[in-house]
Amino acid sequence: MLALDQESELQEFCTALNPGRTAEFMEGLDDSDVWRVLQFAQSDRRAEIFGHFDEERQLAMLACEPPVETAKLIEEIPADDRVDLIQGLPTETVDEILPLLPVSERRDIERLRSYPEGTAGALMTTEVAKLAEKLTVGQAFDELAGIARSLETIYYLYIVDDHNLLRGIVSTRQLVSSLNDRSLTLGELMETDVVTALAGEDQESVAETVERFNLLAIPVIDSGRQMLGIITHDDVIDVVREELTEDAQRIAAVEPFDDDFLRIGLAVLSYKRGLWLTILFFAALLTAFALRHYEDELAVHAWLVWFIPLIISSGGNSGSQSATLVITAMTGGEVELTDLPKVLGRELGVSLMLGGFLSAIGFFVALFVAPSAVAALVIPLTLLSVIVCGCLCGVTLPILFKRLGLDPALMSNPFVAGIVDILGIVIYINVARIVLG
Amino acid sequence: MLALDQESELQEFCTALNPGRTAEFMEGLDDSDVWRVLQFAQSDRRAEIFGHFDEERQLAMLACEPPVETAKLIEEIPADDRVDLIQGLPTETVDEILPLLPVSERRDIERLRSYPEGTAGALMTTEVAKLAEKLTVGQAFDELAGIARSLETIYYLYIVDDHNLLRGIVSTRQLVSSLNDRSLTLGELMETDVVTALAGEDQESVAETVERFNLLAIPVIDSGRQMLGIITHDDVIDVVREELTEDAQRIAAVEPFDDDFLRIGLAVLSYKRGLWLTILFFAALLTAFALRHYEDELAVHAWLVWFIPLIISSGGNSGSQSATLVITAMTGGEVELTDLPKVLGRELGVSLMLGGFLSAIGFFVALFVAPSAVAALVIPLTLLSVIVCGCLCGVTLPILFKRLGLDPALMSNPFVAGIVDILGIVIYINVARIVLG
Repeated sequence: MLALDQESELQEFCTALNPGRTAEFMEGLDDSDVWRVLQFAQSDRRAEIFGHFDEERQLAMLACEPPVETAKLIEEIPADDRVDLIQGLPTETVDEILPLLPVSERRDIERLRSYPEGTAGALMTTEVAKLAEKLTVGQAFDELAGIARSLETIYYLYIVDDHNLLRGIVSTRQLVSSLNDRSLTLGELMETDVVTALAGEDQESVAETVERFNLLAIPVIDSGRQMLGIITHDDVIDVVREELTEDAQRIAAVEPFDDDFLRIGLAVLSYKRGLWLTILFFAALLTAFALRHYEDELAVHAWLVWFIPLIISSGGNSGSQSATLVITAMTGGEVELTDLPKVLGRELGVSLMLGGFLSAIGFFVALFVAPSAVAALVIPLTLLSVIVCGCLCGVTLPILFKRLGLDPALMSNPFVAGIVDILGIVIYINVARIVLG
Repeated sequence: MLALDQESELQEFCTALNPGRTAEFMEGLDDSDVWRVLQFAQSDRRAEIFGHFDEERQLAMLACEPPVETAKLIEEIPADDRVDLIQGLPTETVDEILPLLPVSERRDIERLRSYPEGTAGALMTTEVAKLAEKLTVGQAFDELAGIARSLETIYYLYIVDDHNLLRGIVSTRQLVSSLNDRSLTLGELMETDVVTALAGEDQESVAETVERFNLLAIPVIDSGRQMLGIITHDDVIDVVREELTEDAQRIAAVEPFDDDFLRIGLAVLSYKRGLWLTILFFAALLTAFALRHYEDELAVHAWLVWFIPLIISSGGNSGSQSATLVITAMTGGEVELTDLPKVLGRELGVSLMLGGFLSAIGFFVALFVAPSAVAALVIPLTLLSVIVCGCLCGVTLPILFKRLGLDPALMSNPFVAGIVDILGIVIYINVARIVLG
């Protein structure tokens, strides 16, 4: 279509389809062709389609086009996404674009940029329906009709006073339900018990609130209850996804990173992984010293060596199961700090069952390689103790770290692995000493 | 308040606060007291407050109260949540309650119950604004005013024909924007390119679509494009959370479970964990046989034994980092099956850096314990090979399992650990043979 310059078809392409779908169809085009197609869309539609490309692509397009053109597009992008984009652009480009924007938009961008990444302020959009208490239902609809097109969401209307203090909230559903009673004022309709987020609040805690109260959007206020903006449901889903992905990575002892896995620099990735890998390495080094310490026992009973990896990995695996279960349960709000005794009690039961079962298998195998049936007992006794220790360590450390104000996901698994490794060796040799005399 | 029977205060308590907050305040009360307080709320408000308790609490309340009362409440609960609740109740209670509901509600419940757990059909609600194409904007508002209160969401209006086939969609935002042009019909306003989900579709794929297109709700249709219901954003957040939590658990080799961590039966939990722990145990058993096979080498060079745990855990840790990164990147859509060559190339680079660094430390330590500097070389050479193998295994297996149609999270880590353990021993002894002659 582009090659043939079919203007009306291109306009049709930009308007008839869902903007997400239009963007999908253009994935294969190169940046400048996408930009040319976008010129056929109306300005608000253009921003919407543009918003469905991934950030890397968006930045590439913005960087290539003349600032006058990009400024026009940026004006149409929702305030929260716009700030993220601008933060990704090179400083010179930003300096070229900003002066081309209207003053109010520019001030808005500057303000949003001042909130640190990861706070409610950085996540919010300032394009929100703010109305006065004294408006009637009828007047509210007239007002909304004028501004609806430029707002990201009109599903909640926020009622503010002359000083921009948040007084209450009216949902569009309530407003529509009251259509037969047009003289009611918003002040009479509004709910005054509004669930809010503070601008400096951590984004994960905001996401939790939105989830708990099943909200479509949450208003962001400053400490003086001034209404600053709102955070919408789509940003909340992103936060939840980010938070849980970071958890999974921390559990595997990787420092989380912002970039895409395929795009992050190899040196950065090596650093993010190497950090914890090195800590784990030093923990494992301790086992070498422990084994060296028990040199004599191992020389006499050479067959004990064969089971070292089995014992260590059984302890490590059961411990990492326990730690992961507790960490995910804490993230999901199922386990609180005060639940430690209950968690420990249950874990003891589970670990005895698991340990008992695996010990039985271990005993059976050991019977074939140990010098006597009594000697073979070393293996099941060790396995049972190591698995119970691993499980109890695994549930205790995350709860302990959380109580100390540390991130349970980040700290637990390396520590659990380190402790269980060394404990495994010590238990093993001491059980052997007792059983074998 | 209850003790004093202060009726008006209780009514106030149920209406003035946000329903979620009212529920929170009542957390401490026992079931029958909560129920008594709820009687002071209006019926739709009552269902909303009730909906903010967790499922266990809801079931406990429903089980204790007379069916006539519970049926009244159930009528008010949104259709999708209601079905989940009913599936949690004992069969006798359900049999008592169902006949007390109006026929249409009963049929609705039966229909939703017929969709298997985990599909779009089981997640959807049937309470949705369906309007005819020929209505004008003004008529649509009149219609909405009557039904808005009973619907979970009115933020999208679905346009269906006489046979309930989905024709298009109008957002309330568009409708409000068109208030000054009341004679427009919905048919003229609607977008016809509607993003939909099929009733049998997997809930994770539905969540992905909703995220990609930033939707507030997605319509669910059958294969004949009949409009069945919608899935709302709050259910999508739940699905995303559930999916990622399951991923984290599978990575730690735990079969995911539906229940809360503190509430699941210990026998079930032991089974869910024991299954993979046993598979891992058998994999680790192989190392025992391998070590036994190399008995002679280990007897001559006793110091090699000391580094066994270090080598195995270095390989295991780096492999599990790689596997977790690839699994989370695939879940987040960053890595596709076709990216394998690129992923492998990058991983080779990272693993050489990580392996090189840890080998250097290992060599330094080995110098102190090995009989000669040449002998000490066994340790860094082994560490480097094991870490590179661990990383490459770690990224390959998840992609391979996904290509085979298996769940990458479930299968990868146990296999990676098993392969790396046994490979570690084999590499270790063979490097030792070459270096030590």
